[in-house]
Amino acid sequence: MSPAEVRALFRGGTVAPTAGWADGYTQANLVAVPRDWAYDLLLFCQRNPKPCPVLDVTDPGWTTSVLAPDADLRTDLPGYRVWRDGELVEETSDATPWWRDDLVAFLIGCSFTFEAGLAKAGIPLRHIEQGRNVPMYVTNRACRPAGRLHGPMVVSMRPIPEHLVRQAAGISGRMPAVHGAPVHAGDPAELDIGDLASPDFGDPVVAGPGDVPVFWACGVTPQAALMASRPPFAVTHAPGHMFVTDVRDTEYRID
Amino acid sequence: MSPAEVRALFRGGTVAPTAGWADGYTQANLVAVPRDWAYDLLLFCQRNPKPCPVLDVTDPGWTTSVLAPDADLRTDLPGYRVWRDGELVEETSDATPWWRDDLVAFLIGCSFTFEAGLAKAGIPLRHIEQGRNVPMYVTNRACRPAGRLHGPMVVSMRPIPEHLVRQAAGISGRMPAVHGAPVHAGDPAELDIGDLASPDFGDPVVAGPGDVPVFWACGVTPQAALMASRPPFAVTHAPGHMFVTDVRDTEYRID
Repeated sequence: MSPAEVRALFRGGTVAPTAGWADGYTQANLVAVPRDWAYDLLLFCQRNPKPCPVLDVTDPGWTTSVLAPDADLRTDLPGYRVWRDGELVEETSDATPWWRDDLVAFLIGCSFTFEAGLAKAGIPLRHIEQGRNVPMYVTNRACRPAGRLHGPMVVSMRPIPEHLVRQAAGISGRMPAVHGAPVHAGDPAELDIGDLASPDFGDPVVAGPGDVPVFWACGVTPQAALMASRPPFAVTHAPGHMFVTDVRDTEYRID
Repeated sequence: MSPAEVRALFRGGTVAPTAGWADGYTQANLVAVPRDWAYDLLLFCQRNPKPCPVLDVTDPGWTTSVLAPDADLRTDLPGYRVWRDGELVEETSDATPWWRDDLVAFLIGCSFTFEAGLAKAGIPLRHIEQGRNVPMYVTNRACRPAGRLHGPMVVSMRPIPEHLVRQAAGISGRMPAVHGAPVHAGDPAELDIGDLASPDFGDPVVAGPGDVPVFWACGVTPQAALMASRPPFAVTHAPGHMFVTDVRDTEYRID
């Protein structure tokens, strides 16, 4: 399916994690904050480029992005979260009633974007094999604060056969705009992750024999910053339920 | 010389373009604007990552950067420019009298950073051979505007032997944080550059036989935006007179 077809489905009410959808196209995290918080968030992203690589920032009140000019940011993602004072107040598949004229929308690179490259190289993707959302975990690594925003780095995890970890790092490393190389491979305790079977966001996945857990910086990190820093209002995507853009993944590959 | 030694010389009053100094270390453009203009500038940089890759942004009034914690941004560059309402009002080697508590300093990647890599590969650097500043030109390519900021892209030019252009593009392309791959090679008219011998900034350089002019996006682009957009006040580096940081150039290389 094309990105436009995928977005039409989501606009129609389909709710699903987007890993494996519209293969070969860039996917993005969404964080929309009031104009008054936009500088802090943009600076937070600049200071934490591994978890928060910014692909586009809209002007206040806009509902479209250059990444997919025909898309409506309020309806075309499969899932949204609405936040007040750092608390989740609603999950919805249509953010239209919550959108405000002062909202500035940030589109942030997503690691689903390099999964087509991993798959092409023969690297198994357990969450897709198992029909699940990718598991995500809050870590012990603090982001560099910016203004009123602070919080821990969130990571996504993919179990990868040990002999393919280096290749997976190389393929993703050439795509810094969608999180780049892993931040860690191996013992989850090093990131203070207690139990891989209990992710903070997404679903647990079953590792294959000989798999090593590999961790990438994750665009859910701004949501952890919302929880920690409690801005008065925000709209985000639901973790794993991304904005599917019209931009080819190769546009973000450094050759 | 180490970056700290180079900065000490500049702090002492030495004025020189910094190409070829402190080989192997990252160099940066400086643009400091009042807090009220910082969001527009940060957004302008996000929307124009080729000419404006941001390496660090300070908090208001700060005079230091994480890129070189011991350095003073007001004194440690060899040359500064002071701007009022988009007009150049002073060139100086000490910006201390002009610094203000509301200034936010942007450090933006500089193509001098990948010159060590080019030299190592045997690619001649004519401006360094000839003891000159690199030539820079205003182009016909408009940057994507952000808030009150708009302006044309500025490029730096290096004449490179035709058979080495592809290699130079590959080496610089792996360093997107310091402008990455060239934006153009060949006929200057395509960028609406009339006469290579009359650069808008820096010095003209003499091409070798068989050289092709190769153009990279340049961190002087924000200065062109200041001229076009006329914020009330700004302090920048003088073109080619960069901030020499403590960060190894390899830190910004995608391998």
